[in-house]
Amino acid sequence: MNEDAVVVAIDHGLHWGSYDDFADREATLRTLLEANVDGLLAGVPFLQRFQSLVDDYDVHRIATLDLLHNSTIPGGDDGNEIHTQVFSPETAVGVGADAAKMALVYGRSDPAVLSDNLDFVADAAEVCNKVNLPLVVEPMLWGQEIDDEFNGEMLADAARIAFELGADVLKTPYPGAEEFTQMVENAPVPVYIAGGPAVESDWEVLEMVAGARDAGGLGVMFGRNVWQREDPEAVVTAFRRIIHDGASVDEAAAALEGV
Amino acid sequence: MNEDAVVVAIDHGLHWGSYDDFADREATLRTLLEANVDGLLAGVPFLQRFQSLVDDYDVHRIATLDLLHNSTIPGGDDGNEIHTQVFSPETAVGVGADAAKMALVYGRSDPAVLSDNLDFVADAAEVCNKVNLPLVVEPMLWGQEIDDEFNGEMLADAARIAFELGADVLKTPYPGAEEFTQMVENAPVPVYIAGGPAVESDWEVLEMVAGARDAGGLGVMFGRNVWQREDPEAVVTAFRRIIHDGASVDEAAAALEGV
Amino acid sequence: MNEDAVVVAIDHGLHWGSYDDFADREATLRTLLEANVDGLLAGVPFLQRFQSLVDDYDVHRIATLDLLHNSTIPGGDDGNEIHTQVFSPETAVGVGADAAKMALVYGRSDPAVLSDNLDFVADAAEVCNKVNLPLVVEPMLWGQEIDDEFNGEMLADAARIAFELGADVLKTPYPGAEEFTQMVENAPVPVYIAGGPAVESDWEVLEMVAGARDAGGLGVMFGRNVWQREDPEAVVTAFRRIIHDGASVDEAAAALEGV
Amino acid sequence: MNEDAVVVAIDHGLHWGSYDDFADREATLRTLLEANVDGLLAGVPFLQRFQSLVDDYDVHRIATLDLLHNSTIPGGDDGNEIHTQVFSPETAVGVGADAAKMALVYGRSDPAVLSDNLDFVADAAEVCNKVNLPLVVEPMLWGQEIDDEFNGEMLADAARIAFELGADVLKTPYPGAEEFTQMVENAPVPVYIAGGPAVESDWEVLEMVAGARDAGGLGVMFGRNVWQREDPEAVVTAFRRIIHDGASVDEAAAALEGV
Amino acid sequence: MNEDAVVVAIDHGLHWGSYDDFADREATLRTLLEANVDGLLAGVPFLQRFQSLVDDYDVHRIATLDLLHNSTIPGGDDGNEIHTQVFSPETAVGVGADAAKMALVYGRSDPAVLSDNLDFVADAAEVCNKVNLPLVVEPMLWGQEIDDEFNGEMLADAARIAFELGADVLKTPYPGAEEFTQMVENAPVPVYIAGGPAVESDWEVLEMVAGARDAGGLGVMFGRNVWQREDPEAVVTAFRRIIHDGASVDEAAAALEGV
Repeated sequence: MNEDAVVVAIDHGLHWGSYDDFADREATLRTLLEANVDGLLAGVPFLQRFQSLVDDYDVHRIATLDLLHNSTIPGGDDGNEIHTQVFSPETAVGVGADAAKMALVYGRSDPAVLSDNLDFVADAAEVCNKVNLPLVVEPMLWGQEIDDEFNGEMLADAARIAFELGADVLKTPYPGAEEFTQMVENAPVPVYIAGGPAVESDWEVLEMVAGARDAGGLGVMFGRNVWQREDPEAVVTAFRRIIHDGASVDEAAAALEGV
Repeated sequence: MNEDAVVVAIDHGLHWGSYDDFADREATLRTLLEANVDGLLAGVPFLQRFQSLVDDYDVHRIATLDLLHNSTIPGGDDGNEIHTQVFSPETAVGVGADAAKMALVYGRSDPAVLSDNLDFVADAAEVCNKVNLPLVVEPMLWGQEIDDEFNGEMLADAARIAFELGADVLKTPYPGAEEFTQMVENAPVPVYIAGGPAVESDWEVLEMVAGARDAGGLGVMFGRNVWQREDPEAVVTAFRRIIHDGASVDEAAAALEGV
Repeated sequence: MNEDAVVVAIDHGLHWGSYDDFADREATLRTLLEANVDGLLAGVPFLQRFQSLVDDYDVHRIATLDLLHNSTIPGGDDGNEIHTQVFSPETAVGVGADAAKMALVYGRSDPAVLSDNLDFVADAAEVCNKVNLPLVVEPMLWGQEIDDEFNGEMLADAARIAFELGADVLKTPYPGAEEFTQMVENAPVPVYIAGGPAVESDWEVLEMVAGARDAGGLGVMFGRNVWQREDPEAVVTAFRRIIHDGASVDEAAAALEGV
Repeated sequence: MNEDAVVVAIDHGLHWGSYDDFADREATLRTLLEANVDGLLAGVPFLQRFQSLVDDYDVHRIATLDLLHNSTIPGGDDGNEIHTQVFSPETAVGVGADAAKMALVYGRSDPAVLSDNLDFVADAAEVCNKVNLPLVVEPMLWGQEIDDEFNGEMLADAARIAFELGADVLKTPYPGAEEFTQMVENAPVPVYIAGGPAVESDWEVLEMVAGARDAGGLGVMFGRNVWQREDPEAVVTAFRRIIHDGASVDEAAAALEGV
Repeated sequence: MNEDAVVVAIDHGLHWGSYDDFADREATLRTLLEANVDGLLAGVPFLQRFQSLVDDYDVHRIATLDLLHNSTIPGGDDGNEIHTQVFSPETAVGVGADAAKMALVYGRSDPAVLSDNLDFVADAAEVCNKVNLPLVVEPMLWGQEIDDEFNGEMLADAARIAFELGADVLKTPYPGAEEFTQMVENAPVPVYIAGGPAVESDWEVLEMVAGARDAGGLGVMFGRNVWQREDPEAVVTAFRRIIHDGASVDEAAAALEGV
């Protein structure tokens, strides 16, 4: 993972259970593949089940190794803090993954949850290194101690710790152009953006993607910003024009209207 | 486990200790086998003890790997939350099992219990995969945070997470025809029903089974709905007519009256 | 362990520390061996230390693998709940044991203690199975949630769970003739009794032993009921008459008076 | 360790951090060796660092495997309860130890600390047995539940449990002549004394040592009672006269005055 | 690590996330290498990433194995106590490290955090010993129970425990000339200083370094005292004159002004 790429996350169910816009996994997957997405982010069983389908495409497979819950109710968010590694790097390799991914979450109220998180990220980095699987770490600000999950300074700090723990690639929330430029300059590893503050229009999303590119980001690893859009296929195409072809927001927006 | 089947669970003692209608294990087992049940769900020691007896029949053996207690009193239910993996997939294979089974329980008050549950289900899925043993996961809504253990939306979310963790087969409570149809359509794996809201009459049970079949379910994995009925053997026969022969509730009910 | 037997437990020190009637271990052991006891229940280090002495006799050796404390004060009982596996089945085999033994304790206030207990009993059962060492499980009702530690229904439930976890043999408190008869009939494994409600006279103990035998129990695994009696050697002889020779209480009592 | 011996503990720093009378380890060690001490009790790194120096003497080396803290402040005592195994029996063998040592502490307020202690003592006993390293266990009464750390009955109970867990040798506080006689008689393993209630004069210490010898104890394993005395070398000589030569307190005291 | 050395720590990001003066890792690293620093202290991934660059210089590489957080907010300090081992000695060897480093932190409010710390330091010492990697332990006074993190007596106690746990080298805060002299005299291993009470001027830092040298310390392992200075390169040169050449503070200060 050291190149321009538009990656789409389809591991959302792993974390929140419910996703109205993503009921039929296989159909969604086919749509993304046909849209020439550069990479997929999904859980190990998902990659295993659809391995032969994905084999027909030239696409990166990033296996999500960890699991987040904010509740003991599926899809709930009531302050519970569950974060655990559920898959091993070795298993990821076994289903064809060429990278793995984990979150590093700051802002919890229970220090034991963060301590475990630090442990399993460092452990996974060590194992990934052995089996030659790049590890993507996603620093996040999320929990009862966080007011602004896009706080640039905190994200920069979390990103540095992610690197110090062994991240080969960073997937980070987009804190805005200036702060992101600083993060990329200081990061000795490739950086992709994970999404940003709620954006309403397609135009705003495209602006964020172009901003990330201009700041030195290698691309996007998006979930809801793709498949909760009206036309996911067109959105992927527009992102690709920005990331791969250097298109302006105007040019990319044209893709959205008439692909 | 990818075919129409009537499976009967005889692992009840593992979870609740007491079961008035199931005192003599061997007699119960013989009755079920003679009734041509398609599969048995039981703990590893049970499968081991009666291995040679079961060998004489063509029947699936699904080993229950986990253990649930709601109390430190045997058979009690006082809000305690105990859920632990007690048997390994390898041991299940050693006693002739051709599948394994675990519960995934949402609704607890203690997030650590769910976190452990997520861990051991994912671990077991990984091991089952290695030893080529399909893993049945039963999403459940059970505990102090749950008002309705047949809530369709929550069950659908829990089922998706079960799949994302590596379930090869789902065994799910029956939330009603409409919600179950939705679950089956979205699930990329076979689905069996585990039972439903308390039903009084045999007729109501048959209607649930036919409803599950019509919605695309592959069959039933029932416990009390079989051996707490007046005539377990006849009930199994009636279920088989619905599941295997496409019988209507009327036709199946005839089996109940005069097998 | 699938035969009539009078087994004496000399693992008491392991659990309560203090035992006035059992200060000199070796003397006690010689007395029991000379009394033709059929089996000994003791900790692994005890079996190791006296291995060559015991080798001279034809006697079963059952290794106690777990440890119970009700206090952090030796011999105390103040509501603390400590229960842990301290020896492994493999070590038991290494000191000549032909069976192992563990307690399964219901009635604690802390569910984590029961959850651990369930785990290590199931684990030990799996290992015992591999090394071909029968596992005796003793269901117990003991702790702050228990009013009557000889409650027949609860003991029956606990015994069923013990079997479902992998017990090859049950050692159970004696809940009375009727309830014990039911337990033995339902248990697919041999059952021994562990003792009963406080009995004052030798006669009452003999009645309990005869009652257990009449109900289908294979014998006794007693501790204090042997070596806290006035004449342990005579008591063992009397038990043997009941268990092996089918003697009546009257006949056995004769043994007590003039061996 | 099955012979008369005067052993000196120089593992004090491991437990309390501070020891004014023992600042220069190497000098203290040389003094003890020159005084013909029979054995040394020290941590694994200590034994490793001074291995070649000790090799020149004929002296037992007992490796302390565990660590006690009563505070998170070095040398503090504020009710915190920390007790953990820090070295393995295998490592002890690797640095030339011919025995290992652990404490078994009763009287804590947190049952989990005792439960861990029981676990690691039993585990170490199992491993020591395999690598042929005798295990010295020191039963102690220490913590918020203890009024008198030399209570004879409690020490006897704790000593029995230590034996039942696999102790090959006991190192016990000296509860007085009568109680110690009873302990030695009941213990199927050699017993050494660890010290006793605060004694002011050298004479009182000699009386304790002679009393322990007369009661059947094999010797002493002392720390502060040696190197907090005015003349540690003379004290060792006096102890040796009592333990090895059967000297009276008078005769040994003579050694103290004019060695 | 048994020689005079000026070591610079660049593992700061691992612990606190944020460091304004150290944004560009590679540039900082090059500056230090060009300044002829004798050793680097850094996390395993850092050493791995810049391994070939560092290979061009004759410089010690000390791998920091543990991670400290005082908050669940990156860079925060709000009383949370997180301390965990994140890298293994074996991995450190794999990236070219010739020593490893861990903190031993006294003064926490939670005894479990200290107990874990003691465990993993002792474990790492054992493994380091096997793979022939010297272990530097840094005793620290830090947390809610500490008023003065340079308390000489407490540091001496903590340093002794560090040695007793297996430290091959000590890196200790500088408690002042008198107390440090005592520490060095009593320590059977080499001692480096880690920094001292906040010093404002370069002159004061040089005085501390010279004081440490005069007291028998082998050198410095500094972080902020190097790269938060105005001219890190000149500071390193000045330190080297004191440590290697026996320069006075005056002479070394000259280096600062005109290198």
